[in-house]
Amino acid sequence: MPRAKPPPISTLALASAGEVEEQFYAALRRADLEALMTLWADDDDIVCVHPGGLRVIGPSAIRASFEAVFSNGPIDIHPEKVRRLEAPAFAVHSLLERVRVRGATGAETGWVVATNAYVETPVGWRIVAHHASPGARNEPQDGADPSAVLH
Amino acid sequence: MPRAKPPPISTLALASAGEVEEQFYAALRRADLEALMTLWADDDDIVCVHPGGLRVIGPSAIRASFEAVFSNGPIDIHPEKVRRLEAPAFAVHSLLERVRVRGATGAETGWVVATNAYVETPVGWRIVAHHASPGARNEPQDGADPSAVLH
Repeated sequence: MPRAKPPPISTLALASAGEVEEQFYAALRRADLEALMTLWADDDDIVCVHPGGLRVIGPSAIRASFEAVFSNGPIDIHPEKVRRLEAPAFAVHSLLERVRVRGATGAETGWVVATNAYVETPVGWRIVAHHASPGARNEPQDGADPSAVLH
Repeated sequence: MPRAKPPPISTLALASAGEVEEQFYAALRRADLEALMTLWADDDDIVCVHPGGLRVIGPSAIRASFEAVFSNGPIDIHPEKVRRLEAPAFAVHSLLERVRVRGATGAETGWVVATNAYVETPVGWRIVAHHASPGARNEPQDGADPSAVLH
């Protein structure tokens, strides 16, 4: 039996950066490439940095990178501690992604630090940048240990 | 003899995101905390993610983190391969930071991937977000190896 599909993104309002962000993480949890790509702005300079350090630029390359990611299945990922910097036509959100991964001793929780930038376009809010990088091993405490900083 | 100081930031136009970015990396190269902090927007939600994964939020915490960084002296850092996503009042730049560090076998070049977000304020363009994270060991090739991606 085919699973129930969520409504197509094009029928959603995406009336705020927050709505786009919610859909973004929901698409990662479903490994839904089409839904995920609809959330990005149609611009050659959109950018995605994956936790491994790989920088991917433009819609085609970003699609290919997430296709590779989803070949391993959905991602158990949840945004937490979101800080929002909002302006009339753009927003920058900083958050911690709580990710469940299979480790040597079973399921483990990992933390990823993400910066997400959004713009309001004629068809609603869209992602222009997603930068994700490894956080602390345990749940990061913001600003807790500046002495450990390279720059 | 006191070294020649650059002109104070407040007398600079900072008429574009690009100018702010140039001043930002120049301040890192001089370990000039005052100049560096003047480049940030005056907002409690400005955010800085350092390559070690530490997320720092707000002007006071960001200042403290860079004070710790500069206790080790200036940083030999140069932005390269800048991609610019520009709008009338904000901009997102993605770039690779080439950093010279002392390694086990002498000076080594490291690569850091950075996303810098800027807004135009009544007093000129300012930084609202700087997210830096370790890049590939060698000079990263954008989108070269999506199979190595976690997400």
